[in-house]
Amino acid sequence: MKIVRFRHEDEIGYGVLKGDEISLVDGNVFGVFHIGDRKLALDDVRLLAPCEPGKAVCIGLNYVDHAAELNMDLPAEPLMFLKPSTSVCGPGDTIVYPAMTENLHYEAELGIVIGKRCKAVSEEEAGECILGYTCANDVTARDLQARDGQWTRCKSFDTFLPIGPCIDTRFKPDSAPIRLTLNGEEKQSSDISNFIFKVPRLISFVSQVMTLLPGDVIITGTPPGIGPMERGDVVRVEIEGLGVLENVVG
Amino acid sequence: MKIVRFRHEDEIGYGVLKGDEISLVDGNVFGVFHIGDRKLALDDVRLLAPCEPGKAVCIGLNYVDHAAELNMDLPAEPLMFLKPSTSVCGPGDTIVYPAMTENLHYEAELGIVIGKRCKAVSEEEAGECILGYTCANDVTARDLQARDGQWTRCKSFDTFLPIGPCIDTRFKPDSAPIRLTLNGEEKQSSDISNFIFKVPRLISFVSQVMTLLPGDVIITGTPPGIGPMERGDVVRVEIEGLGVLENVVG
Repeated sequence: MKIVRFRHEDEIGYGVLKGDEISLVDGNVFGVFHIGDRKLALDDVRLLAPCEPGKAVCIGLNYVDHAAELNMDLPAEPLMFLKPSTSVCGPGDTIVYPAMTENLHYEAELGIVIGKRCKAVSEEEAGECILGYTCANDVTARDLQARDGQWTRCKSFDTFLPIGPCIDTRFKPDSAPIRLTLNGEEKQSSDISNFIFKVPRLISFVSQVMTLLPGDVIITGTPPGIGPMERGDVVRVEIEGLGVLENVVG
Repeated sequence: MKIVRFRHEDEIGYGVLKGDEISLVDGNVFGVFHIGDRKLALDDVRLLAPCEPGKAVCIGLNYVDHAAELNMDLPAEPLMFLKPSTSVCGPGDTIVYPAMTENLHYEAELGIVIGKRCKAVSEEEAGECILGYTCANDVTARDLQARDGQWTRCKSFDTFLPIGPCIDTRFKPDSAPIRLTLNGEEKQSSDISNFIFKVPRLISFVSQVMTLLPGDVIITGTPPGIGPMERGDVVRVEIEGLGVLENVVG
């Protein structure tokens, strides 16, 4: 099931996407809901970020091939950082190039959407906490990352976390091609089977630290090939089975 | 005016504290509200964190005397990091000592409570964005801070951000003694006049990066004297005019 959040005229709602049609949802996609009779054409709505995370917990180095590219040893445990709720934007939204930076980078990532409150869950229990998966772009001001040392300012500007286009509840995070194109040219290409820390380990680890709430997202690290974006560039994150997340830099 | 948030039996509400009495508030303390006729005795309620921040933006080194203690140059601009909403707790709540750390530290700090949505405000406009001020304890797992390099895991455990006891809307952040005691013994003592970056600069700077929302807090850095806490310790942050924030480590 592909859950989308949309705006249609003055209405904001959730629906389930099938082909070019959205069946509207009654109820709470993080709780009890059912698929109603009302339908809208995909072309008639604007897709929004498919959830409204209270927090986005991001994982540093998590691809074997990215570690090799950077000549880094594999980490012994996940390294986490946070992006605020205010950094989230949706498919088609403009990534705003801030005045404070001169080196804005893309990072294609798989996003895990948390479905229910969880705290200190085991790897075995982790699956029950997941609503589904989405594409994400962990936009980063690379110059500020080096200057600050801390990865907060460089990752936290408004619009620095595009997510979407949907939450796929049936996606299996064992293997799937992940790629990023910039103006049609392939820049990142890998497979999520290259994860150093798999999804159950990430959820268990993060939930030992902080309670995860419905709608929170865990952003799982980026493959090799990170690089700069310029104003006017079209950036697309594509994970096979999850669709395409496209944004323009403005 | 000292705004408090409280639980009384099954009710959670906002009120204005005067002496030992709370006058209940009708409306939204971040919008339009008035003080109603109903009153409760302070002894009959449990005070909660005085707001529910969507995000807590924290500032690194911000006291001239702390920089001197650490033999560090004064920073040219504020260094920011984030604590998640799930780290917030209130006066009297237990700070939970996590299994992942063996070196839990206190950090007394002044908290700024944002009153209205603001983005890229000037220092002159910053005052209009503030609802008031509160005491905060930026609890930190010092060993994980060194191990990770990033200050996220070490700062983000549940209960690692006690705030309270009230939001004081009349507090002037130019100068006020700030102190922290551990089991009655003074560990930190300074004055907020030692800020490297004053409140208007902090709000303006942070809001250039991310939109601040009502209830968000900015935690403004800690004075000299940081150190460890053990299970059973009673830790008190006191800022003159704002009252005392007391917690036990458990």
